[in-house]
Amino acid sequence: MAEVVNMIDSEVFLAFSTYATIVILKMMLMSPITAYFRFTRKAFANPEDTGLGKSAEEKKKILRTDPDVERARRCHQNDLENILPFVLIGLLYSLTGPDLHSALLYFRVFVGSRFLHTVAYLAPLPQPSRALSWMVGMGVTFAMAYRVLTTALHL
Amino acid sequence: MAEVVNMIDSEVFLAFSTYATIVILKMMLMSPITAYFRFTRKAFANPEDTGLGKSAEEKKKILRTDPDVERARRCHQNDLENILPFVLIGLLYSLTGPDLHSALLYFRVFVGSRFLHTVAYLAPLPQPSRALSWMVGMGVTFAMAYRVLTTALHL
Amino acid sequence: MAEVVNMIDSEVFLAFSTYATIVILKMMLMSPITAYFRFTRKAFANPEDTGLGKSAEEKKKILRTDPDVERARRCHQNDLENILPFVLIGLLYSLTGPDLHSALLYFRVFVGSRFLHTVAYLAPLPQPSRALSWMVGMGVTFAMAYRVLTTALHL
Repeated sequence: MAEVVNMIDSEVFLAFSTYATIVILKMMLMSPITAYFRFTRKAFANPEDTGLGKSAEEKKKILRTDPDVERARRCHQNDLENILPFVLIGLLYSLTGPDLHSALLYFRVFVGSRFLHTVAYLAPLPQPSRALSWMVGMGVTFAMAYRVLTTALHL
Repeated sequence: MAEVVNMIDSEVFLAFSTYATIVILKMMLMSPITAYFRFTRKAFANPEDTGLGKSAEEKKKILRTDPDVERARRCHQNDLENILPFVLIGLLYSLTGPDLHSALLYFRVFVGSRFLHTVAYLAPLPQPSRALSWMVGMGVTFAMAYRVLTTALHL
Repeated sequence: MAEVVNMIDSEVFLAFSTYATIVILKMMLMSPITAYFRFTRKAFANPEDTGLGKSAEEKKKILRTDPDVERARRCHQNDLENILPFVLIGLLYSLTGPDLHSALLYFRVFVGSRFLHTVAYLAPLPQPSRALSWMVGMGVTFAMAYRVLTTALHL
């Protein structure tokens, strides 16, 4: 992690900023997708959200869970569990001064794997497409973590 | 993202550190709030947490879900989905050298919108107060992401 | 937060990188643990994941929730709610130029408390072991947040 100060303004850091932002935006997109399913499937979690229902009875009826809404929520949850570690470990990784070629490879593979994961989850595509795209993303994060630990180790 | 090294010690970065810490603390506050509802509503998720119940039967009875507990948990989840992207994109945004005036505006509006969101969720206030406060926060994060992508783009 | 640029290459930052990576890897480990429980308990969330079931009836039967799976998921959720704030506030804390001794103490206590928390949650150990390990971790994050706010305050 020598010369980290020079590294922070490097092409690797610019690439990291770009891909991290793109994949966080993808994650944030899950909120409107969930909202879309809530409105089209009429399935809400809070009594104050049931304005669509006209009668008290109807309001109660749309206060329910729906398989499509739950699917979108599980996809969002998986994003939180995988994209946030990628961004945090990726930030530290970018400061270890890796060569641009490896860094770009990692960032592109990870971001690609998460877009595939979302499609595989929401479609849904038959397994093991979702499992594989998830594992590829995990693998990239582990590889970056390995470099951080071998470069920066200070226990 | 030129001269990022000088930027990291700038007033923008200090302001980011301050507002990011405040809004993360707000998010962490949801844990004690959930715990408060669990104890007052006597609704626990784990058998080992039911020490309040005296008999085995009573212990089983308080192993349940409660609307107020679930509401606090959904509010916490929404914080995770929105505040963590704000902090991560805000960090990259702070390194792009924005002017202090815009940065402070973004940080203040976001943090304000999340406090409003929490009040609107827990009270609960009638919609669309919660929806609007959520959208304002999303808008700020998108605006900062736009600047990161236009300043740092390296695909 | 003076001389932050020199600080980023310091031993404190190396130590932060090491402990943050370790505790994020610990959090990521919850995914395979959840998958392990899903397979051994035969409890899946998505219809496309029920390939283990041979008949349509059997497939439907393993589309269910299981106490051990839910326990692992709650542990993972608690990690998201606590480890991500630690890493983000810890990053800002590392840039405030704390002395190495205090920083190492905070990082070690936090990481230790989260490993204990996971063991206490999954075993499960009798309370208040889980509650105490959770509180110790929260305390460390609050202490670091206090230093960030007192050093960098710019509202």
